[in-house]
Parts: sequence; C-alpha cells; structure tokens
Amino acid sequence: MPIVSVTAPERESRYDIHIGHGLLSRCAPLFHACRGRRAVIVTDTAVAPLYAHTLSGQLEAAGAQVSTAVLPAGETTKSPEHLSRLYDMFLDAGLTRSDSVFALGGGVIGDLAGYAACTYLRGVHFVQVPTTLLAQVDSSVGGKVAVNHVRGKNLLGAFYQPELVLIDCDTLATLDDRQFGAGLGEVIKYGCIADRALFEQLESLGSRASLLPALDGIIARCCEIKARYVREDPHDHGIRMQLNFGHTLAHALENALGYGTLLHGEAVCIGMGAAAGWGEALGVTPLGTRERIKRLLDAYGLPTQVPQGLSPEALASTMALDKKASGHAVNVVLLTEIGACTSLPIESGRLARML
Amino acid sequence: MPIVSVTAPERESRYDIHIGHGLLSRCAPLFHACRGRRAVIVTDTAVAPLYAHTLSGQLEAAGAQVSTAVLPAGETTKSPEHLSRLYDMFLDAGLTRSDSVFALGGGVIGDLAGYAACTYLRGVHFVQVPTTLLAQVDSSVGGKVAVNHVRGKNLLGAFYQPELVLIDCDTLATLDDRQFGAGLGEVIKYGCIADRALFEQLESLGSRASLLPALDGIIARCCEIKARYVREDPHDHGIRMQLNFGHTLAHALENALGYGTLLHGEAVCIGMGAAAGWGEALGVTPLGTRERIKRLLDAYGLPTQVPQGLSPEALASTMALDKKASGHAVNVVLLTEIGACTSLPIESGRLARML
Repeated sequence: MPIVSVTAPERESRYDIHIGHGLLSRCAPLFHACRGRRAVIVTDTAVAPLYAHTLSGQLEAAGAQVSTAVLPAGETTKSPEHLSRLYDMFLDAGLTRSDSVFALGGGVIGDLAGYAACTYLRGVHFVQVPTTLLAQVDSSVGGKVAVNHVRGKNLLGAFYQPELVLIDCDTLATLDDRQFGAGLGEVIKYGCIADRALFEQLESLGSRASLLPALDGIIARCCEIKARYVREDPHDHGIRMQLNFGHTLAHALENALGYGTLLHGEAVCIGMGAAAGWGEALGVTPLGTRERIKRLLDAYGLPTQVPQGLSPEALASTMALDKKASGHAVNVVLLTEIGACTSLPIESGRLARML
Repeated sequence: MPIVSVTAPERESRYDIHIGHGLLSRCAPLFHACRGRRAVIVTDTAVAPLYAHTLSGQLEAAGAQVSTAVLPAGETTKSPEHLSRLYDMFLDAGLTRSDSVFALGGGVIGDLAGYAACTYLRGVHFVQVPTTLLAQVDSSVGGKVAVNHVRGKNLLGAFYQPELVLIDCDTLATLDDRQFGAGLGEVIKYGCIADRALFEQLESLGSRASLLPALDGIIARCCEIKARYVREDPHDHGIRMQLNFGHTLAHALENALGYGTLLHGEAVCIGMGAAAGWGEALGVTPLGTRERIKRLLDAYGLPTQVPQGLSPEALASTMALDKKASGHAVNVVLLTEIGACTSLPIESGRLARML
C-alpha cells in the first residue's frame, strides 16, 4: 500500500509591533510594500472620524490606492452578516492577493478584519492598528481572529498573524474612562502572571494621570510578555492559557449578565480578585495577594466586587462550560506569587463556593 | 520608539497520504488518536449511501463517537449557506477543539468541510477521504480549502492542511465515466508538466480498462508530484502555478459556458491541447506535442475541442480576469517537453487569436 508523505512549510510569521506617540501621522515609511497596491482600511463609526483620514493619508503618501470600510461600532458588528458585507467591500475595492487590509479600531474591528483578511482569496496582507488599550496590549498581538456566532462568542475563527502592528499611544487620549480602565485590567493581569516589576510600577504610579507619560513603555512591556507566550504556544494548546488569569470567572460573569453589561476588561478585574482568593484558599497563592490586587484595582477605579444577585449555582454551571474545561474540572490559572502563575483543574462547583 | 518583535511558529504540517484498494474497510488502526473523541463525517447524498456506513463503523471501532452530516450533492453545496448549516451540525454534535472532521466525498465536500474545520473554534483536526479521482489526485492534497461566493468561485478560502489523507481506489468503481474521465484529465496533466514516464505509461496502457489495475501506483505518483509542489510553494506564490497547466483556457471555458456544462477536468483536457498549441506557436514547445496530447486524450475518450459558438473576444476577456493575470498579461504554463514546463506572461487577446 503506497504512502506518500507531504510536508507543507507554513507561512513565515515574524513581525514587529511599533509603539510610540504620534505614530499614526508619520507611519508612511512603514508601508513601502504598499506602493502601487490597494489597501482597505476597516474601521468603525466611532474611530473613522478620528483617525481614518490620517491613516489613509499616510497610506496614500506611501503610494497605495486606499478605500475605507466603515462598520457600525460595537460587539454586534463581529457577526457573519458584517463579515459578508466586508467581503463585498473587498470585492468592490478590487482587492487582490497582493493587496492589504488594515484594521483601525478596537478588538472587534481587529478580530473581524483579521478573519476577513485570512479567508478572502486564501489570505491577503494584514496590518493591525489598534486604537484601544485592550486591543493594543492584547487582541492585536498573537494572531487570534474571529467572528461571533449566534451560539457563541468567537466560535468561528482562525490563527492569522498580522504582518505589522502599529500602536499609537496618542489614540488613547480619545478613549473613554471605562474603555481605558478595561484595558488597564489586562495590563494589571500581565503584572500578576508574569512581571512583578510591572505590577510594582503600577502600584507606585498609583493613578491614571501619572500613568499616561509612562504608557508607551508599559504597552511595550505587555506586548513583550504576550509575544513570549505566542512564541511558546502559537495555537493556544498549553502555556498560553496563563493569559486567561481572571478569565474563568470573567467569562461566566459576562455570560450570566449578558454581554455588554460589564466590559470584558472589567469582568477580568473582578475575576483576578476571585482567582487570587481561590489560590489563597487552596494554599497556592501567598496570603494577602488578593488584598494587594484589590488595592491596585481600587487605585485605578476598577471594579473588584462580584455584582449582586448572581447565584453561585448559575456561575458554577457557566464556568463548567469554559473552553478550558475538561470534564467537570475547569483549568484555573492561579498565582504562585505576584509575577508568576500555574494552572490547576478545579471542579466548577467548588470554585463557585469559594467566591 | 519601542519595537517588539513577535515570532509565531506555525502549525506543524506533515502528513501521510495512504493509498490502497479496500482501505476504507480496514482503516480503523489509522484513527487511534480518535479514541474517546467525537468525529463528524461530512459527506453528500451521492456518497453517503455508498461509504458513510463503512467509514463510521471504522471510526467507532477506533473508539470515536461519530455523527454524519449529509449535504446535497453538487457544486452549489460549496456555499456560505451550507457552510453555516455545517457549523450548526458541528455545534449540535458537540464538536470541541480536540475532535475531528472527516471529509468523505469529492472536491466540493473536501473544500467545504476543510474550510469549516479550519474556521470552527480556530481549527479542529481534519482528515480527507476523497472518493473521486479528481479529489484523490488533486484537491485533497495541498491544503487549499474554500467556499464559493456569489461573485466568484473559491473566493473565500484558506490554507489548512489535513492530518491524514485516505485514498481507497475501490471507491472509483462507483464513479461515473464522465467523473472518472475528468479526474484522468488531471492525471494526464501531471504527466505533461512533471513526469514523462507517467505520460508514457498512460500512452501504453491506452484504455480505461487496462488502467484500472495500475491505478493505485498512478494515484500515488500524482500525489508525490503534487506533494513536491506543495513543499516548495505551500501558499501558491510561485512554482505551484505550474499545476495550472491547461487551466488558463479551462477557467475561461467554465466561466463562458456557465459552471457545470463542462466538468472542471474536461475543461482542463481542452485547455491542455490549447496550451500545447500556444507553446508550439511561440516556439517553446516541440512541434507535435499538441498532437501527441490530443491522441492520448482521444484514447481515453476525453474532450479535445473548444466548444462551438464561443467568440475569441469573449474568451480573451475572461482569460484576462484569471487569478494568475498581472495587468493585461496572463501567466500561462507552457510545456518545454512532455514532462517539463515553464510559464510566460502573454497578452490574453493574443492567446485567444492563437486558439
């Protein structure tokens, strides 16, 4: 019986994240490969009036023919229907395999535009230009692209690395306080799981006002940590799950309250406190860690309390549906100290009782 | 300005194609990784009654929990609507990231099921079980997965390599003559572009009846050639275009006549004769090659004539839309001898005048 072996070397995925103040208005030199090519900027109604003109001007200065696709702002845009609209816009723009898609916006735009770029003509060039803190430190790095399905968030998705990530910290100036705080929750998470010095820097800065001037360095540090996880576990089968610290309860809260009540980053803030408490109860996390995390979250005005009226039973059954669950046990990320973590399978009912 | 570099090593893509007679009824040992896992067999109304039971029995013998998704037979199934139905079937079956999708059928089922496997939960395990000659020698190998869009064939797609390809030559016994011939067109193509010995073997066998006993070796040879192209050019940016010998005119014919009038492999047969003629007219292909290819196609009852009533102008403008076109010139694959080829950019009007 003949057996033929096939080896398909995969796409080279090595890319740079450029981080700086005012980057958006001087990024043309980064786009030299776009000369004579088409580029579609995918953005939303909130971001387009602020930054689409600047990005499109830079792309034109680099010699590209630019179209802009403006989608409604909000999580509901990450749908198969808007994906289909986006394909039509790519076709209308005459986008070919040598052309590029630019995602200008938050996580919703990055995920949707990335999924479209991955699947249109078997993949076109893709550049992330995240404009929210959450997207800058998390979703724009690592290649996860997705569309929601009526039966679940991110149910349709793929891994598709961008060729370039462009982070202009100045775009955060137009971000509202809640959105900024939600991103800061993920920044604190990086400190908790992987970087004690970052955590301590956030403690000593102590307020949003004193944070701002240090932001480019802080974002870079978060991207470095994320990049390390992506290198070690590109397809999320192992250690990358540590990035889910605080997410076990967060996903259950988002699910139980309905998506949109809490921002994802806010739910993560509450979830980190809970996970620190679980770790302390189990003897994995040093006593006092939960209190220290809560103090830091408080200093930045971030939520720390599980909202009233949610039954432990309901949260337990939602946590049991976690993607990181296997059987009845949920794999929970627990801190071994500030800046280091591990994961343990714990039965979801027990988690709920420890809240 | 901080710059963070990201390296994302891609999925290991190394897999075996098992080729043999009666393989389907003794393939359970190949599925040991499926024990305790779910498996969804994606197939169509033509293939399900013939082979779904056998495959599902083997998977169950290997310890898998099997569901079968039966879609309508035919090219129209490769649509976003049926893709969406397939996602629902995956959800109903409780398919998780550790489970598998099996494509049992021809190219339509392989392309659609592969696209669904690539995009569901950011990718699940995928096994190709092609049951047509065309799928066995071409579409099941190389990782191209796709769905048609109302505005173009394969417009939505990705590269997603299977983990295993299982070719049971006995499934060809139930293939009708036209479908078998269409697959044979692609087999002859491999001989033309890359394997003089294969071409000569087909000449000396001389009829379908004498071909059958040699088929496993011939299919293996075609898969080896395809595997070589995939290894050298996994994402179809260069030499893999040689696989498109005969396809420039074939795509234009399919487009001009409406998809389904000619089978793809039949259109390729006509296209190979035309491309040999172009090569002779341009002095690239030795004189007599066109005649030799036509004789071989005739021996197997395959079409060699451009259908009446198609204007050269219409074909020229359709060829100019070819995916391999750049500007007005189309990159055409031409034979330098039987078993070797090259490609040249040629203006599409000139191609049509040389028909």
